[in-house]
Amino acid sequence: MSILIKNTTIITQNKKRKILKNTDVFIEKNVISKIGRLDVKAEFEIDGSNKILMPGLINTHTHSATSILKGYGDDMRLSAWLEKRIWPVEAKLTPEYTKNAALLSMIEMIKSGTTTFNDMYFFMESVCDAAQLIGMRANLSYGVIDLFDSVKAKKEIIATEKFIDYVAKVNDSKIRATVGPHAIYTCSKKTLIAAKKIADKNKIMMHLHISETKKEVDECISQHKMRPVEYLEKMGVLGKNVIFAHACHLTKKEIEILKKYNVKIAHCPTSNMKLATGGVIDWPNMQKYGVCVSLGTDGSASNNNLDMFEEMKMATLLQKHAREDTTVMTASETLDMATLGGANALGLNAGRIEIGALGDLILLDANDIALIPTNDIVSNIVYSANGSCVDTVIIDGKIVMRDGVILTVDEDAIKKKCKKIAKKLCVK
Amino acid sequence: MSILIKNTTIITQNKKRKILKNTDVFIEKNVISKIGRLDVKAEFEIDGSNKILMPGLINTHTHSATSILKGYGDDMRLSAWLEKRIWPVEAKLTPEYTKNAALLSMIEMIKSGTTTFNDMYFFMESVCDAAQLIGMRANLSYGVIDLFDSVKAKKEIIATEKFIDYVAKVNDSKIRATVGPHAIYTCSKKTLIAAKKIADKNKIMMHLHISETKKEVDECISQHKMRPVEYLEKMGVLGKNVIFAHACHLTKKEIEILKKYNVKIAHCPTSNMKLATGGVIDWPNMQKYGVCVSLGTDGSASNNNLDMFEEMKMATLLQKHAREDTTVMTASETLDMATLGGANALGLNAGRIEIGALGDLILLDANDIALIPTNDIVSNIVYSANGSCVDTVIIDGKIVMRDGVILTVDEDAIKKKCKKIAKKLCVK
Repeated sequence: MSILIKNTTIITQNKKRKILKNTDVFIEKNVISKIGRLDVKAEFEIDGSNKILMPGLINTHTHSATSILKGYGDDMRLSAWLEKRIWPVEAKLTPEYTKNAALLSMIEMIKSGTTTFNDMYFFMESVCDAAQLIGMRANLSYGVIDLFDSVKAKKEIIATEKFIDYVAKVNDSKIRATVGPHAIYTCSKKTLIAAKKIADKNKIMMHLHISETKKEVDECISQHKMRPVEYLEKMGVLGKNVIFAHACHLTKKEIEILKKYNVKIAHCPTSNMKLATGGVIDWPNMQKYGVCVSLGTDGSASNNNLDMFEEMKMATLLQKHAREDTTVMTASETLDMATLGGANALGLNAGRIEIGALGDLILLDANDIALIPTNDIVSNIVYSANGSCVDTVIIDGKIVMRDGVILTVDEDAIKKKCKKIAKKLCVK
Repeated sequence: MSILIKNTTIITQNKKRKILKNTDVFIEKNVISKIGRLDVKAEFEIDGSNKILMPGLINTHTHSATSILKGYGDDMRLSAWLEKRIWPVEAKLTPEYTKNAALLSMIEMIKSGTTTFNDMYFFMESVCDAAQLIGMRANLSYGVIDLFDSVKAKKEIIATEKFIDYVAKVNDSKIRATVGPHAIYTCSKKTLIAAKKIADKNKIMMHLHISETKKEVDECISQHKMRPVEYLEKMGVLGKNVIFAHACHLTKKEIEILKKYNVKIAHCPTSNMKLATGGVIDWPNMQKYGVCVSLGTDGSASNNNLDMFEEMKMATLLQKHAREDTTVMTASETLDMATLGGANALGLNAGRIEIGALGDLILLDANDIALIPTNDIVSNIVYSANGSCVDTVIIDGKIVMRDGVILTVDEDAIKKKCKKIAKKLCVK
């Protein structure tokens, strides 16, 4: 397929963060091949005047199948929420339910301009099928939880390897298996080490939660006499293929360690605020040491939407509030997190509109009331817009949404199925 | 006009916070006159199945004409922002510019489900004309700033009285003049007292900023040996017709004083975070003492949108974060702030769907992806929705927006005018 976007405003996110006006973009196969005033023919031509073209957003931490749990147990204490709401539902999940729930999240992500997501959950074969069906780019990890039980640990490692094989057989360049040891408080040292070995052997990433709550940090210190990052460094599982979700409670020393190993961070401000984890990522030091920070929504159970535009606003507002400084995490830095940061975190040739980069692009309706007037396009994107400003989504050089309509799956049918699933599973 | 909404789901916000299903609502003239399974004829009939009917949202603190300043000077220090961006633009404002800028904000507010707003700025006659034209309910105050100059003070009082006369002559029951002394650090004691007297004499409200920043509080203590609320109490200007914007830095004693006089609060979490004012309203004590708390977006220069759905999410997330408690400010309490709280703050017979209440209602598209599945409608409204879920808006018994289209003004023409105004005024 080839796509020509004519006469548009482009937020390139290139090295100079150039904004181009009245420019055309040509996408051939799955790559951006030409940018300029172009005289070419394409199979699909899109009039980009009165639109804003920008890189697709990259959501580096979510649990897509939790869309079913949206609004099921808000405002509860963590333990009650898990025991009375989350775990009973998860016990009843099936592959079929998971596939539909994941599709619902993917529809939501695409509609709000996300082209790639980094996911962790159960029945990941179903999530893989869903991503393939809808045409999203995804890193998928089976969530490994051994609860320090060696029998369970063995089963979890087998499940991980089985899932990696499954993804390999699917053979979709957009979908990559990832190893997903859930966290240091749910996985034994042995499992964490085994997980990293599997990731390295298969040349894939490892995705885990870290330092989300003070409790986790305090328990680590009490059990291991070390903070979480130090604990992981000591067992030798840090590396450039590792992505940490949350990382709210890190010391400067831990940030230096992350930089040393080029570990990536998926920052999830909305979830952190809603679950009252009490932490705020130390952006000034992460920026100072050049740690790769990307942005994630977390799952629908703790957000409760997957709108990366909203997430950008939340990220910068939380920093300004926490540091009592209006200048910290600027609009441009925040947009970088959601585009270039995400691409860097997941090792993707994306997050920017340049010749040779992947064809993962979105178009915003420049006539949306949130975007008028345009004193500063980037500011409007970060502080004024929400996901509803997106009208067209291109992933891997294919048009997945046009004028707000998803082209690859039957949105209404999936919504109907998910309503039924929620009615069955989420009983108060 | 009479409107019948058939077969809908109603978030009543009545005393029991009842949610009614498959119910009809009949609006005659400007009042809700019947609720139930109705066999009546109406001039307009709306199919409410697959919709959610709720009270229109009430934005109790904004500066509507600042839409022009959207994105003009984000991430700057407060003093540089005011000196280099805000004041130079404000010096060039005209009544015509103000009218169009205010209309742009009103379009944005209506599109995102706000039916009433409480405004303070300059050229308020133009804002009054705009509100009348578009058909919004509004409390409008001319922003009084004397900078402790007695000559300027006299002029400001005259301007206030002139504006009150203007609104009286307009004679639109939806539009009410309000007295607007800007703040204790921009108005002398004499002016504050005069303002309250004018409000009382005219039986209208008084709207001012208070305790937004620590600096303001510290200066008040240093100059008057009292905190801001104590200072205002001592000069005798507190009362049930007073609404305070921000109120981020209050002691428990000050909250008790506010309760004693039944002073109202307009909480603006997004603006407080973006401007890094360092404060978070003391919701637990405000709730404990029964202080009326409502919700405001503040102006587009410090938000940068007027989406009250986003504001609700921000309010509850900020509380949970600040108090490290997931249970504080529940979804239901937050929705109350944006509906019942706003109506109470402005003394309106609105904010709920009950027989006899004003016909200020909005319909959400229940099929919006953000609202599916519906484990808890109120949770979806507060945590998942954004303003784009709104498709129909009724104000004072008149349909002002239908299927996303504003019926009372030419949206595109106003957008075009505002783009031109911004280009002229906002020069970097």
